[in-house]
Amino acid sequence: MSEPRRDSKWWGWGDPAIEPELDAEAVAVLSERIGELTPSPRAEELEAFELPDPRPLPAALTEAAGPDGVFASTEDRVRHAAGRGYADLTRLRSGRLAAAPDAVLLPADAGGVQRLLAACAAEGVAVVPFGGGTSVVGGIEPLRGSHERLVSLDLARLRDVEVDRCSLTARLGAGLRGPEAESALSSRGVTLGHFPQSFEYATIGGFAATRSAGQASSGYGRFDELVEAIRLIAPAGDLRTLETPHTAAGPSLRELVVGSEGVFGVIPEVTVRVRPAPQARRYEGWMAESFEAGAEIVRALAQGPGLPEVIRVSDEEETQVSLALSGLHGIAGRLFEGYLGLRRRREGSLIVVGFEGGEESVARGRALAVRELRRGGAAYLGQSAGRSWERARFEGPYLRDTLMGMGALVETLETSHTWSRLGALKKAVGTAIRDALAAQGTPGIVLCHLSHAYADGASLYFTFIAAARHGAEIAQWDAVKRAASEAIVASGGTITHHHAVGRDHAPYMEAEVGQTGLDVLRAVKERLDPTGIMNPGKLLTPS
Amino acid sequence: MSEPRRDSKWWGWGDPAIEPELDAEAVAVLSERIGELTPSPRAEELEAFELPDPRPLPAALTEAAGPDGVFASTEDRVRHAAGRGYADLTRLRSGRLAAAPDAVLLPADAGGVQRLLAACAAEGVAVVPFGGGTSVVGGIEPLRGSHERLVSLDLARLRDVEVDRCSLTARLGAGLRGPEAESALSSRGVTLGHFPQSFEYATIGGFAATRSAGQASSGYGRFDELVEAIRLIAPAGDLRTLETPHTAAGPSLRELVVGSEGVFGVIPEVTVRVRPAPQARRYEGWMAESFEAGAEIVRALAQGPGLPEVIRVSDEEETQVSLALSGLHGIAGRLFEGYLGLRRRREGSLIVVGFEGGEESVARGRALAVRELRRGGAAYLGQSAGRSWERARFEGPYLRDTLMGMGALVETLETSHTWSRLGALKKAVGTAIRDALAAQGTPGIVLCHLSHAYADGASLYFTFIAAARHGAEIAQWDAVKRAASEAIVASGGTITHHHAVGRDHAPYMEAEVGQTGLDVLRAVKERLDPTGIMNPGKLLTPS
Repeated sequence: MSEPRRDSKWWGWGDPAIEPELDAEAVAVLSERIGELTPSPRAEELEAFELPDPRPLPAALTEAAGPDGVFASTEDRVRHAAGRGYADLTRLRSGRLAAAPDAVLLPADAGGVQRLLAACAAEGVAVVPFGGGTSVVGGIEPLRGSHERLVSLDLARLRDVEVDRCSLTARLGAGLRGPEAESALSSRGVTLGHFPQSFEYATIGGFAATRSAGQASSGYGRFDELVEAIRLIAPAGDLRTLETPHTAAGPSLRELVVGSEGVFGVIPEVTVRVRPAPQARRYEGWMAESFEAGAEIVRALAQGPGLPEVIRVSDEEETQVSLALSGLHGIAGRLFEGYLGLRRRREGSLIVVGFEGGEESVARGRALAVRELRRGGAAYLGQSAGRSWERARFEGPYLRDTLMGMGALVETLETSHTWSRLGALKKAVGTAIRDALAAQGTPGIVLCHLSHAYADGASLYFTFIAAARHGAEIAQWDAVKRAASEAIVASGGTITHHHAVGRDHAPYMEAEVGQTGLDVLRAVKERLDPTGIMNPGKLLTPS
Repeated sequence: MSEPRRDSKWWGWGDPAIEPELDAEAVAVLSERIGELTPSPRAEELEAFELPDPRPLPAALTEAAGPDGVFASTEDRVRHAAGRGYADLTRLRSGRLAAAPDAVLLPADAGGVQRLLAACAAEGVAVVPFGGGTSVVGGIEPLRGSHERLVSLDLARLRDVEVDRCSLTARLGAGLRGPEAESALSSRGVTLGHFPQSFEYATIGGFAATRSAGQASSGYGRFDELVEAIRLIAPAGDLRTLETPHTAAGPSLRELVVGSEGVFGVIPEVTVRVRPAPQARRYEGWMAESFEAGAEIVRALAQGPGLPEVIRVSDEEETQVSLALSGLHGIAGRLFEGYLGLRRRREGSLIVVGFEGGEESVARGRALAVRELRRGGAAYLGQSAGRSWERARFEGPYLRDTLMGMGALVETLETSHTWSRLGALKKAVGTAIRDALAAQGTPGIVLCHLSHAYADGASLYFTFIAAARHGAEIAQWDAVKRAASEAIVASGGTITHHHAVGRDHAPYMEAEVGQTGLDVLRAVKERLDPTGIMNPGKLLTPS
């Protein structure tokens, strides 16, 4: 039996061997914009970590878990106590957590999940379902609700793979990480094509529970679109939707389980749509005259001939700063000539486009895209700029660790809206973040890109960086996050396009779905989880 | 203020001026297969219709409806008492109905809907929301549940149209019929592209409430995919989902309202995605060697370069019979040369493909499709065969009236499954229908086509025709419908791909979503409709 995974940094993101450094130019660009930073050292010793003492589990629960199914070391508790948002990392780096699961349970299969949930429901033990632990919205925060004890239910052992090559579907265990799923699929000649920034550590179950969207979702579909069928094990019952391409049999229960974030029950497996592995891939960079011009190009593609598999437009600020920080791409061993070229040409808005698929469809898709790019006044930068982005696509979170060590606040948030209201939304959110940072005495930079485009609109992804207020990091972050969220809500945008709700966005769910919408979600929860043990405090605040 | 619509046949389908006749060859082909038919005359006089006496409405309700909002003539009650399935038409043609609404209410706007639902909830009056009245699954059957009185809530006055040309979306009133919506959109240069066979009479609200799919849904998307946002007025509250292209804010409430079939509340308006009106259209016919060969061509397209806007494959039996019945296309004034040619070549499986969009995308789409069609061994029949189908696309229900008058049982049903299980499903359902018809002493024909294809599977649409058992039509129909439904469920297919659940499929919802799924839907209903007034007996049977 496998143990809980312990292969990533306990205090930060990903592979412990990867710790990028900023080059001198990047540091200069940053200090010029946000002032000098005071380094913020982190706790070094996992063993010295301060955690509340665990409460003993009821015997019925440890029996249900079996002797090789319960883990309660400091390391395992720390690794299951926090996600990977800025607030999580701030707490982890401090070497102290106010809360942690009393134990980590690893069921062997779906039957094990059923038995554990039954025991937890009978004994009143709160349960946080755990996939990759990569939530950036407080989705695995160990909140107990009205319960005294809390366990993390780690699905790492649920890793079955069953491929239907004829129907291009695959039934995947919830505990498979992105690379594990892709590797198993690849040996059958297919791909899921789902590459969120968390790809390396996030899991299939987590993708489904949070409505994940990946960097290539314009082409392959968001994760919710890839789900053909799903299963939910709830304290009050087992729900499976049919494995069929489509049904008109009433409201969609599949769409009620997707995005349920562990508050209704546990997703043990998902049947997903897969595709033949791409024969060809081509990534390239373009420079639009402005963000608005770039957005118009994407709108024309989305409303006309169709989108490339990847397309994103950085605004002018993100273009300049990310080019300045491109020294980071030294992570991959060297700077790429495209970026070197770009450093001499920082005006405008960087567009990255990627084409994947059959040779012919890549050529066809590119021809259509190039026509719109040229029509919209964009200049071709070459494939190296695109390849640089592609190689660095999972590196953002590593960079965040570096910046936090240097003393910076770094956070991201995202939303979406229709094309006609996207400009106003971008302006309102950018202003809110800048103003809130300034009000904290830490003026910062706000970067934005458009990605995940649709015929009717697109998502906006914001990154903000400022000097951290040492000793008051969480309060500082909280003030900015609140200002941004309120601006989103006031503009009619969604509180999240693909990060999910978790704890952080729960206060905005009433703005999102209204009182009646909340009532409906609570009614479903009460039916599926009558004792309220499932992931308390996430998605739905108590009524 | 408008009155309830009275512009279609009260006893059958559509425009009273259209009553197609079968030519001699078609009649011969039919009798050869299902035996001689005994004509079945219908009731002629609407005024002589036998209905139960209406129960008087509570004063609070008539007050809420206002003086121009209540209609209770025999004609209006008959027109709101039945859908357009075979059982409905059998009853209507008999001139007697065992049940009808006590009155028809026509609210002027969403506020009127709210007031009427409040009054109905307070007084315990059951409500059947009414759009076009075209359900073929008993969706508007006047079942009272535990209530003494029942009204039909006709949304015909909710016809607002608001287009966002930049975002390619439109907010449409629930009461707009297909042609009304298309006409309003056409004046803005856009189209919804939703063309189910019921297009002429069905409404926007009905499309949403039943998860409608249209003949061009492979290209334009099913109606559920076209819904960007939706509103539900329930007895217990008002629910609106955000007008945004996508959100990850929890389970999808939009997908819970879409397909809710009036059991949670009333859908007063829907925000849909629209497209630029097509510049070019090309329909053509091909002949595959067999149904299996045709299905493989569609699978190759769906899993590869993409589907045409329309694609459907008739099995060998449907190909032969529909060609024999093509005299019906005389409705449009003459037989088309393509069909004449086809009559000399009845072997194989007819494929209809349609391309719509920009000139260039039509040419591109056709080139890709032609390659797969030729690779799969299909022979080109020309555009006339395709055009014939396109012109006749809304004529099926008119033909059913003719056949019923001749003494035939004619019914359709549909399902879907993954590619790997589609062949077994087709065989099981076809056999079940044939055996059940034979067991009734009325051996019949079973026609099938594949439409609505996806990368992971497709829908199957069955039509069956046999001699009606005069005086026992409903029992005969019920036995065959039950046999088909049980075969679908046993094969793991969905009980409905796009006809919805209504009353007819409600007994199969447990097979579809399981006991836990039903529990969840009931929990939602109880929260939104605590007194159970909304469309009793549909979708969910009492627990």
